[in-house]
Amino acid sequence: MQIPTFDDVEAAARRIAPYIHRTPVLTSSFLNRLTGAELFFKCENFQKAGAFKVRGACNAVFGLSDEKAAKGVATHSSGNHALSLSYAAGRRGIPCHVVMPRTAPQAKKDAVIGYGGMITECEPSTSSREAVFAEVEARTGAEFVHPYNDPRVIAGQGTCSLELNAQVPGLDAVIAPIGGGGMVSGTCLTLSTIAPGVKIYAAEPEQADDAYRSFKAGHIIADDAPVTVADGLKVPLKELTWHFVSNHVTDILTASEQEIIDAMKLTWARMKIVIEASCAVPLATILKNREVFAGKRVGVIITGGNVDLDKLPWIKG
Amino acid sequence: MQIPTFDDVEAAARRIAPYIHRTPVLTSSFLNRLTGAELFFKCENFQKAGAFKVRGACNAVFGLSDEKAAKGVATHSSGNHALSLSYAAGRRGIPCHVVMPRTAPQAKKDAVIGYGGMITECEPSTSSREAVFAEVEARTGAEFVHPYNDPRVIAGQGTCSLELNAQVPGLDAVIAPIGGGGMVSGTCLTLSTIAPGVKIYAAEPEQADDAYRSFKAGHIIADDAPVTVADGLKVPLKELTWHFVSNHVTDILTASEQEIIDAMKLTWARMKIVIEASCAVPLATILKNREVFAGKRVGVIITGGNVDLDKLPWIKG
Repeated sequence: MQIPTFDDVEAAARRIAPYIHRTPVLTSSFLNRLTGAELFFKCENFQKAGAFKVRGACNAVFGLSDEKAAKGVATHSSGNHALSLSYAAGRRGIPCHVVMPRTAPQAKKDAVIGYGGMITECEPSTSSREAVFAEVEARTGAEFVHPYNDPRVIAGQGTCSLELNAQVPGLDAVIAPIGGGGMVSGTCLTLSTIAPGVKIYAAEPEQADDAYRSFKAGHIIADDAPVTVADGLKVPLKELTWHFVSNHVTDILTASEQEIIDAMKLTWARMKIVIEASCAVPLATILKNREVFAGKRVGVIITGGNVDLDKLPWIKG
Repeated sequence: MQIPTFDDVEAAARRIAPYIHRTPVLTSSFLNRLTGAELFFKCENFQKAGAFKVRGACNAVFGLSDEKAAKGVATHSSGNHALSLSYAAGRRGIPCHVVMPRTAPQAKKDAVIGYGGMITECEPSTSSREAVFAEVEARTGAEFVHPYNDPRVIAGQGTCSLELNAQVPGLDAVIAPIGGGGMVSGTCLTLSTIAPGVKIYAAEPEQADDAYRSFKAGHIIADDAPVTVADGLKVPLKELTWHFVSNHVTDILTASEQEIIDAMKLTWARMKIVIEASCAVPLATILKNREVFAGKRVGVIITGGNVDLDKLPWIKG
């Protein structure tokens, strides 16, 4: 297991700067009054391809040798990582192969194609996905870029809190949603080096609380097919992200589905920004753990804004 | 008729600075490619009370003598002006009286009350509104602040393009939605002084195109109860806003209901910001008048973000 270092984060920041946005930090006096904390929202929903994942994807793609790059990159994902890797590969002018279940929503397939990715469909099962992915890898020689359990990806995600720390001096804590743990790991990697006094919290849906249970148990526990509105957070920790989570995270806090939906709608209504359900989990946990955050300067990472606007969780279809 | 001058805009900018946000300007490479223009979105949806109207309201409220102010302010509106005036009065610590039809949605009443406004209900007719408003004015001695046909309000709205011009040098054009014409008048007032080469366009729903027809006819034509999704744009021009529109606007462009809804959804989806239907009208008209804006640097004023999230126009209820 190759563990990325802060040097890798700094190299990533230089490497990806031409291809990503330095996203703004927004505040809301209403939410500050409501929580008793001073919240600083790092808006990765405004990021290229609509999510922070483009940081790790660009770092992986632009770190390849020309020879490697010529064969392209590949991944299996139906979410923001697939979009981001397609975007990054497109900027470098190399192929991006995405293995996706044939049952994935057409809108997600269209989005990947819109960013230039090439889809190979598999059946909606782990065995089919692995078989099809192995075939694509063997046929193309493309470089596999895992959505989070990859040192290049984690170093890329670490550039987000590098920016946040420069934009907002004197933070007491940072909180980010946790699924596979890529963003949280990057945050740990960066802040444990440049701002070791900043506490790092992870926020997770109660209904997909494998990271919470892993954290309490002291070893990785994977969920079996969790169901949550925060669909970016269903994946389990892996050894590399577990390393960072177990060593650097102060606590993992959870929220119910209704609390997540309420926090999502509240953010849209008061901050006028479109955020995914996943990024509402931090605010939901801040609202129910007031005593942890009151009086503190808290960075809140808004991880993405790729939402199906035809199906909002507070509107019954 | 007292016509405000650019000195009034500069005085307004100084007066209201402590109470408003200097809102950010956002760009979208996707929308630039789509339109062929370079678009700069001035995001007044992030403004205090959720809309540009707070500029004019604060200028009116904080320009009052202490003696006048003690009696409070009053208006009739069920929209952003009522919220903004309530907010401004609250910051000065004076009463704000709002006359509103008893049939107005409870959410709108709650929002005004949330900002500290006091509601007096009338029947949903012009005669009742005028009678009730006259009674409130006589009883309280409060200062009437019209939503747009007021030199203090227009000077306040003019501070928006003062900021935009500083944030984005070398604009070729600015486009804003037009209802009563307060924002467009403020834009004309400011830009005709500090950047007279910038063309000013107004954008209007086809189904509430009284400003368009007035502009072509050369005199004010009022609509009779127009119906449009852009509910902030139903009100007619008045003599003061007509003065600015007729003297300084290059053209008025219109869009259909479906074009407005499509542009609204597109903005949410690609820019990840919550905007009202009214502020989607400019983008809708840019998309259908490509030849007017292609190759140009265009400021687009996003006027507000106060949306009923339970009733989105592209989701059938």
